[in-house]
Amino acid sequence: MSRITLVQVGMGTVGGETIAQVIANRNRWWVDFGLDVRIGAVIGRGGALVTTEPDGLADELLRGLVHSRRAGTALREAAAGHELVEAPEAIALLINQGPVIVMDAAAGEETAALDARALASGAGVVLSNKAPLALPRENPIGAELWASAGPRGHLRYEATCGAGLPVISTLRTLIDGGDAPVENTGALSGTLGAIFTDLGNGANFSEAVLAAKEKGFTEPDPRDDLSGLDVARKALILARTIERRVNLDEIAVENLVPEELRETSVAEFLARVSELDDEWSRRAETARAAGATLKYVATVPADGPIAVGVREVPTSSLLGALQGPENIVVMRTTRYHENPLTVVGPGAGAAVTAAGMTGDMLALGTLLMSRG
Amino acid sequence: MSRITLVQVGMGTVGGETIAQVIANRNRWWVDFGLDVRIGAVIGRGGALVTTEPDGLADELLRGLVHSRRAGTALREAAAGHELVEAPEAIALLINQGPVIVMDAAAGEETAALDARALASGAGVVLSNKAPLALPRENPIGAELWASAGPRGHLRYEATCGAGLPVISTLRTLIDGGDAPVENTGALSGTLGAIFTDLGNGANFSEAVLAAKEKGFTEPDPRDDLSGLDVARKALILARTIERRVNLDEIAVENLVPEELRETSVAEFLARVSELDDEWSRRAETARAAGATLKYVATVPADGPIAVGVREVPTSSLLGALQGPENIVVMRTTRYHENPLTVVGPGAGAAVTAAGMTGDMLALGTLLMSRG
Repeated sequence: MSRITLVQVGMGTVGGETIAQVIANRNRWWVDFGLDVRIGAVIGRGGALVTTEPDGLADELLRGLVHSRRAGTALREAAAGHELVEAPEAIALLINQGPVIVMDAAAGEETAALDARALASGAGVVLSNKAPLALPRENPIGAELWASAGPRGHLRYEATCGAGLPVISTLRTLIDGGDAPVENTGALSGTLGAIFTDLGNGANFSEAVLAAKEKGFTEPDPRDDLSGLDVARKALILARTIERRVNLDEIAVENLVPEELRETSVAEFLARVSELDDEWSRRAETARAAGATLKYVATVPADGPIAVGVREVPTSSLLGALQGPENIVVMRTTRYHENPLTVVGPGAGAAVTAAGMTGDMLALGTLLMSRG
Repeated sequence: MSRITLVQVGMGTVGGETIAQVIANRNRWWVDFGLDVRIGAVIGRGGALVTTEPDGLADELLRGLVHSRRAGTALREAAAGHELVEAPEAIALLINQGPVIVMDAAAGEETAALDARALASGAGVVLSNKAPLALPRENPIGAELWASAGPRGHLRYEATCGAGLPVISTLRTLIDGGDAPVENTGALSGTLGAIFTDLGNGANFSEAVLAAKEKGFTEPDPRDDLSGLDVARKALILARTIERRVNLDEIAVENLVPEELRETSVAEFLARVSELDDEWSRRAETARAAGATLKYVATVPADGPIAVGVREVPTSSLLGALQGPENIVVMRTTRYHENPLTVVGPGAGAAVTAAGMTGDMLALGTLLMSRG
């Protein structure tokens, strides 16, 4: 048997693109890998639409659902004429028919229990959703997910840290080969990268924030980026990947939004963000005078404090030379000590994030076929 | 069955380190991957020493052989007391006992036929040796090797291009996911990287060459690096990885050794290399005046001429900012178009090259176990 059944959880920007890439590449995967990849179910907030056909949900239906979702229509409405079932029921039904991979492109912790349950019943899980992997260690669901994240487990999560960039896979290959991580550092937010590049080029902080918002780099509320929480989650995932037993609340996070602007409306925040300009211009100038530039950096050593926040980095370093929304991860290990191994590139975007997920899916699919 | 038998071809710097890493990590691989990795044979110029034991060649014997090889002793002499057999015979014997992976860390084309024969008989092959993959397309052995280089084949070659850097695996993941390569560019010679960094910092060409030689970055005859042939082979491997059907002689190679110095002794070359200083200083100065710096660059587009040679690149680019012996590969694809995916780090060295080979071995071992 060579059929792999995917369950797509979340059909937003990344989930929709994942579906599009599966449709576009099914034939290639059959020829190149001998894998017959079908989409057996899609899961949204309203429930699951599950296939009754051997080929899975029809391409036309899938395209229609993605289109409806982008137009803001809920799954229940978009799937009119098709019965929805409970998500766990859909997965159980499909697992009875052969190897299943759950593709979690949702946002937030709500899908974590579903993912853990899928793993427990023998399915694979691929995540672009960071939240389930950022649960506290004391949470049994989070613990179950991480227990499946090693070489023999069936969970993959490349797309949670740097989208399609080879970050997690590279760290795993280094560790599997007997290398020992010393420190990972990186700029892991395209939004903050764009803002600090503008700041380094002389823009005011408020100009930089507004420009990033206009270019679509920020969340609808830019404070979701400026808080550093997204970067802290990625730092936590990197830390746990190098086998550190830590929780999110143990990571020191520099929140770029001062307390007095945290509870206001978005409009008021945007109107008042210029109050921060003078201080940021001073900090940027101090850095410049020292041959350095400001970057929002995650520092994840093998031992000692993990931190995310603004640091002065030499302009001549790869990290300091980074321009705009790109991400960088600098991996220093016992073997890559004097000169680290560095990966640079876009760390966000639907196409590359979905490609990160399909890459994981192919690796996991090959493994599941052999063990199924 | 979970036993994977390795056949180590070549026990020089990389081969010796591969053996050391296997001995050091066998237990980890058993625990993490369920793979029981033994070394079943070592192959040198004099023949093959093959195990008669279920656990493979003993660690002590292997360490002794590597030590002898480093001291310049041939395998036949170092293995005194053990009978040597013909290399193909050793592989055939081991294949009868289960999955085999041939680890070719030799140099030169001589092992290509052995590698192809191993593949044909069902073994996997892992290469750090570039030469077999650089054979002309018309050569049936080269064609057989490349036919096994795809997702369903049993040949892996990460360590041929950038040592342990994730270059080939990243390109494969991009292509497998449906992305289309546009152009790969890179600095793929640590030796030439060190030389051009010194030149950019104001050194004379001859000073830069002699400094690289003293630091152990060059081949015994630095002209082997300066000829560009090693970079051309890597460019060819990159080109064939993105499915270009080309031969080495179709790549334009800038040889940095002028004709009159190609046939002299090494000593005479080193004595006369300062004759080149004035021209290189002029070229470096011209670049500097244009905000650029000289790098020895491989350019591998999806279509059109492939070239390796000296180019002026902007100092502010990642490629231009590269310092010393590090390698860089810039991958531009349909999805990574505006901002490419870039990998930077040491592209040579025994430990990282051997790690590139063991990484391939683990991936292939997992695959062979499932299909064996």
